[in-house]
Amino acid sequence: MRVAVISLLAATTLAMTPFAADTDTIRGFTPESSRIERDWESKFKSIPEPGRMREAMRRLSAHPHHVGSAYDKTNAEWIRDQFRSYGWQADIENFDVLFPTPKERLVEMVSPTTFKADLNEKKIDVDPTSGQTDEQLPPYVAYSHDGDVTGPLVFVNYGVPADYEELERHGISVKGAIVIAKYGGSWRGIKPKVAAEHGAIGCLIYSDPGNDGYALGDVFPKGPMRPSQGVQRGSVADMPTYPGDPMTPGVGATKDAKRLPLDQVTTITKIPTLPISYGNAQPLLAALSGAAVPSAWRGGLPITYRFGPGPAKVHMVVKSDWNTRTLYDVIAKLPGTTEASQWVIRGNHHDAWVNGAEDPISGLVAELEEARALGELVKQGWKPKRTIVYAAWDGEEPGLLGSTEWVETHGDELAQHAVAYINSDTNGRGYLDIEGSHILEKFINGVEKDIQDPEANVSVWKRNQARTLRSGTPEEKKDIRDREDQRIDALGSGSDYSSFLQHAGIPALNLGYGGEDNGGIYHSVYDDFYWYTHFSDTSFVYGRALAQTAGTAVMRLASADVIPFSFGNLAETARTYVTQLQKLRDTRNDQIAETNRAIDEGVYATVNDPRQPTIAPARRETPPQFNFAPLLNAVDSLTRASARYDRAFSSGTMSAGASAAVSTRSAAIHSINERLLQAERAMTSSEGLKGRPWYRHMLYAPGFYTGYGVKTMPGAREAIEQGTWSEVDGEIVRIAAALTREATLVSQLAGDLGAR
Amino acid sequence: MRVAVISLLAATTLAMTPFAADTDTIRGFTPESSRIERDWESKFKSIPEPGRMREAMRRLSAHPHHVGSAYDKTNAEWIRDQFRSYGWQADIENFDVLFPTPKERLVEMVSPTTFKADLNEKKIDVDPTSGQTDEQLPPYVAYSHDGDVTGPLVFVNYGVPADYEELERHGISVKGAIVIAKYGGSWRGIKPKVAAEHGAIGCLIYSDPGNDGYALGDVFPKGPMRPSQGVQRGSVADMPTYPGDPMTPGVGATKDAKRLPLDQVTTITKIPTLPISYGNAQPLLAALSGAAVPSAWRGGLPITYRFGPGPAKVHMVVKSDWNTRTLYDVIAKLPGTTEASQWVIRGNHHDAWVNGAEDPISGLVAELEEARALGELVKQGWKPKRTIVYAAWDGEEPGLLGSTEWVETHGDELAQHAVAYINSDTNGRGYLDIEGSHILEKFINGVEKDIQDPEANVSVWKRNQARTLRSGTPEEKKDIRDREDQRIDALGSGSDYSSFLQHAGIPALNLGYGGEDNGGIYHSVYDDFYWYTHFSDTSFVYGRALAQTAGTAVMRLASADVIPFSFGNLAETARTYVTQLQKLRDTRNDQIAETNRAIDEGVYATVNDPRQPTIAPARRETPPQFNFAPLLNAVDSLTRASARYDRAFSSGTMSAGASAAVSTRSAAIHSINERLLQAERAMTSSEGLKGRPWYRHMLYAPGFYTGYGVKTMPGAREAIEQGTWSEVDGEIVRIAAALTREATLVSQLAGDLGAR
Repeated sequence: MRVAVISLLAATTLAMTPFAADTDTIRGFTPESSRIERDWESKFKSIPEPGRMREAMRRLSAHPHHVGSAYDKTNAEWIRDQFRSYGWQADIENFDVLFPTPKERLVEMVSPTTFKADLNEKKIDVDPTSGQTDEQLPPYVAYSHDGDVTGPLVFVNYGVPADYEELERHGISVKGAIVIAKYGGSWRGIKPKVAAEHGAIGCLIYSDPGNDGYALGDVFPKGPMRPSQGVQRGSVADMPTYPGDPMTPGVGATKDAKRLPLDQVTTITKIPTLPISYGNAQPLLAALSGAAVPSAWRGGLPITYRFGPGPAKVHMVVKSDWNTRTLYDVIAKLPGTTEASQWVIRGNHHDAWVNGAEDPISGLVAELEEARALGELVKQGWKPKRTIVYAAWDGEEPGLLGSTEWVETHGDELAQHAVAYINSDTNGRGYLDIEGSHILEKFINGVEKDIQDPEANVSVWKRNQARTLRSGTPEEKKDIRDREDQRIDALGSGSDYSSFLQHAGIPALNLGYGGEDNGGIYHSVYDDFYWYTHFSDTSFVYGRALAQTAGTAVMRLASADVIPFSFGNLAETARTYVTQLQKLRDTRNDQIAETNRAIDEGVYATVNDPRQPTIAPARRETPPQFNFAPLLNAVDSLTRASARYDRAFSSGTMSAGASAAVSTRSAAIHSINERLLQAERAMTSSEGLKGRPWYRHMLYAPGFYTGYGVKTMPGAREAIEQGTWSEVDGEIVRIAAALTREATLVSQLAGDLGAR
Repeated sequence: MRVAVISLLAATTLAMTPFAADTDTIRGFTPESSRIERDWESKFKSIPEPGRMREAMRRLSAHPHHVGSAYDKTNAEWIRDQFRSYGWQADIENFDVLFPTPKERLVEMVSPTTFKADLNEKKIDVDPTSGQTDEQLPPYVAYSHDGDVTGPLVFVNYGVPADYEELERHGISVKGAIVIAKYGGSWRGIKPKVAAEHGAIGCLIYSDPGNDGYALGDVFPKGPMRPSQGVQRGSVADMPTYPGDPMTPGVGATKDAKRLPLDQVTTITKIPTLPISYGNAQPLLAALSGAAVPSAWRGGLPITYRFGPGPAKVHMVVKSDWNTRTLYDVIAKLPGTTEASQWVIRGNHHDAWVNGAEDPISGLVAELEEARALGELVKQGWKPKRTIVYAAWDGEEPGLLGSTEWVETHGDELAQHAVAYINSDTNGRGYLDIEGSHILEKFINGVEKDIQDPEANVSVWKRNQARTLRSGTPEEKKDIRDREDQRIDALGSGSDYSSFLQHAGIPALNLGYGGEDNGGIYHSVYDDFYWYTHFSDTSFVYGRALAQTAGTAVMRLASADVIPFSFGNLAETARTYVTQLQKLRDTRNDQIAETNRAIDEGVYATVNDPRQPTIAPARRETPPQFNFAPLLNAVDSLTRASARYDRAFSSGTMSAGASAAVSTRSAAIHSINERLLQAERAMTSSEGLKGRPWYRHMLYAPGFYTGYGVKTMPGAREAIEQGTWSEVDGEIVRIAAALTREATLVSQLAGDLGAR
């Protein structure tokens, strides 16, 4: 079928009006269809109402609504009914997932003095929902190993690998110890993972007031920052290995799915782990001896931060009910017309750790207003070409459960139908943050230029540019002045886009406003309506901006004549990644060589201070030169192919006024769009990443030791970072193959579009 | 006379054995004289005894001994007698100086709540001298303007000019306000100066626990850091305008000196100023409202640091007795032999703010042991060529009074006789820090290579190299591996070298060990014998190392055949300064142009957050291109002259085995040495720096807005930093003239040494 179409196009070589011939024409539209689109967008943007978002937030965050809670189900049903009331088809899709909840939690110092942490967040009188104790999950982290351990305490800063290198320099081992790490510096699940790799037997994680407490502003309820009893809940499953239900990696957690037995699940922490408040952490940290930590490790508590180990000895107990709970994913649809088999997907989760007004309701209420507005347009006669799917995910907090199980369940359909996935999560006041696939970079820049910042009265694109011009490096300033599109960051993990992009190869974007207000209530009982309406986007005008932004993106993707991917942005970005890898290799080489030389010269022994002894690092092997040629060749191919594609795309094919019959033209465009759906898939590999095959994208993955933070070209980058030199060339070849597949597809598409 | 000698040398062109022909030969010595010198040095280094230093510290720090105190005089007499007992000529030289002492001190918050600061440091039981209240000067800063003011409080971070730019960005003025600044970031006297320039009416300075309190370690008496009641005293006179007695700028404060009336003294602060503890600062800072400060401004207190202004309103009173007090400088001499008219000068102050075990007694006890050891050598038959002058200065703390008045009094003699001045002040455990004149850089590197680190069992030169190889930048590592000599930093201000180098043009070095122990007792009652012998160089082995280092330097300067200045090091360093100035101009240009462009583009308005409004900076004029040619030409001349000098110096003149008569040779060497005395003087200008003529050196001065921190080529550098573009070319010419004078002198000396 596809082959036939290609031949047809090659034979006809139509002369048509160009796409995006002027700046008013939206990419992927003709001037004519663009005018129509703009009219509908203009109507659309006037519909979302801040007042409705406020009321929806009040309703959705009125009670704790974590996975398995009564209000979680109630909310899902209410959301489903809202969609239905907007004119959408909407249903709830269920999955059954492993979701441990706390049965026993204990943290106490047993010597040299005794202290028992209370491990609870107190009710605050002015805040009406903070005291819903019966419905709340108490502070804990999900997927911590059960355990009852006692050991000396060691402070490990953020608990990332570099911190353990610093500990080694001081001769400090965490073997048999309980570590205490600050929140931040990585995704929380990295901390117990790295601690266990180094032999620790338990892990405490606390919120340091220097990061989101009084150091940044008044604490709740006087201000938005974390009070001394506030605790950050969260998941500590090994998400960088795979997200979703730990028992059903790679397949949907449907009723009948084959499940791993609990003892074969690899993503549960190896050691018991608990989160604590800084009020509880202070006596523990103050009881440590040993050398004072380096200045970069210090937090905001009025104590001397020391490494330990001990003399503080800590006893901790974690026991969970290892329940299976039901997820309630709300899936709503607006069917498409001429291209109904192509799905534009949009999502935000609805579950929270407690009341979750900011996380996730601030994003969800924008999504609901988008849905209401789109339903309104349909009533007014709007007919999107493509099918629009809006999801309200359950179980994001414990590990992206609802989205992952849905993607795994519907993998085959998505491979065939999915155009793109647009995610949001929390929302606040400030700048539009965009992360995503680089084939969508040009597209989302176009959207960004058409959304007004509600406070600054310029486009959010212009405001983002101004931020870089105010605070960027000279290189960033030059780049943002000279480059047609603002760069978007690649996606790591931490919200529901992960399975779409990194498992299923669906181009994804993550959108959210923020950056102007500090807050310290993340994943605590104080993330609620009172907090949000006092300290964040209190007028919900940035909520409306998010609805306008994501909704406009959805509309354009749903109605574009040709799906507006841009491969030039991808090729150029991929080239920067290759340059980074080359530099990373050289930097690692220089660092290791320098350290080895310093070891040989006796530098470490010579600077040793007998009162604060330090230990020389071990010699390491320097990296060989790697063969980057396959990758550079692949990027060159992609660059050439994208240039051909862009020439064909903008200088005219398949528009109105063609000599070919309309039906022939439509078929050709349909075929091109169908094949464009494979553009992100082409960069995945069915084998996935080494050691974590769930992650199939060769360009983007969460870092194995960062979690939230992305590693681009992860196979090669992590091999270089981790010093497994022998793997690098092979990984380069695999990434090059992915980019070559992309180049081949793009080149063929360019031909189909009439490029010579 | 000189001309005759030159002719004589030109006529004879002697063939002699070279200086420093091998690494065992000390620069400035012949192989033969070097062997003799090494024998004496070896004897010398074995004499200083840690136990004697400990006992001397116990005695000298037994009571408070600030200027005007009974024990200050007692100590001076005891030091004089010690010198005499070592076989030196020793006397006390007196000066009468303005030294205000506190009569009334008050700091209280009058609204929104009331709080009265206690302004006193408490006795600590285990510390026997901390309770000598009757003899102590209470916490204050000397040369604060008297005043009784009330105003809203504003937190200004370190209170340096860049901090006021940040305040302006936030729309905050200090006009009519009392500022509170952290210690650090500049010399303390800068803080009230800059505050007054911006319209403040009072200035509080406090020691933040993030800088020398609990953040770094246990506080005294459990550890070495500053306890909550500890206060840093100090001088706040405008030292960068001129140091020494405020009433007698430029002349010695002898009995009959002409004195400025008090109301004409320009170096007293314009606003009342007081130092306070962090215990007293915390309630004041916690009572500020306004925006939270940027992260770089935060300190270690468990509060939200805010700018203010207010609502905290503070009332402060400072009244002093504006006394004249007598200084007791101890001046001791070992007369030289063949070159007795050439003086090698060494000094350390003896006055303290309170008991001052670390500052200054730790340095002084090393100096005393050097003196004892040198006296011992003389008894054994050692005959230094040159006269050695050892000084124990009084009045350093209030403003380098004793050294400055002595230098001003003896200006003519010093211009004729001074070879070099070697200073020390406090001493501790760790690395040898060296700052000084670059004509002494090669010389002091030679000394450094011959001193053993008492704990690391390598030379202190090697240990300093290892420190850079451990922690330096790649450029610094390369430099320290490739360059023959380790770089020494230029001298700013803060100890008694200032008048020697910057007023009188005498090459100077400042030497001291440190860097391995933190401490927080600086200028408090807790800087005493108990603290020092528990937390610093407790075994006094680094005290011995300082005695060995400074003593060896003195011996070499006193006995070298040719004074071992090196002009190549100076020329190369001067070239780096020119490069820095060129870069500084370009950087300032880029910054100002970028800011102007951003203003034009509306960047500041666009990023403005209505909840945290900021204000665009004012447009500034970009710098024109400056004419660096005179400076580059002067450096080129100096480079050529130094190369000729070095060739002549190392490839042999005026040594043994010459055909000329010994007397002719001696006269020639004497003449060269006499003219070498002018090598640093040549770089001074009698007009001095613009606006502060006391500072005559064209290469080195304390920064007008840094105090401690040096500004090299200060005339040009500060004109560029401060944006007074029209002054830069003129300043470049003045610096170039100084370097040209140097080049001319060096070139003539090279000729005298036989260079072609």
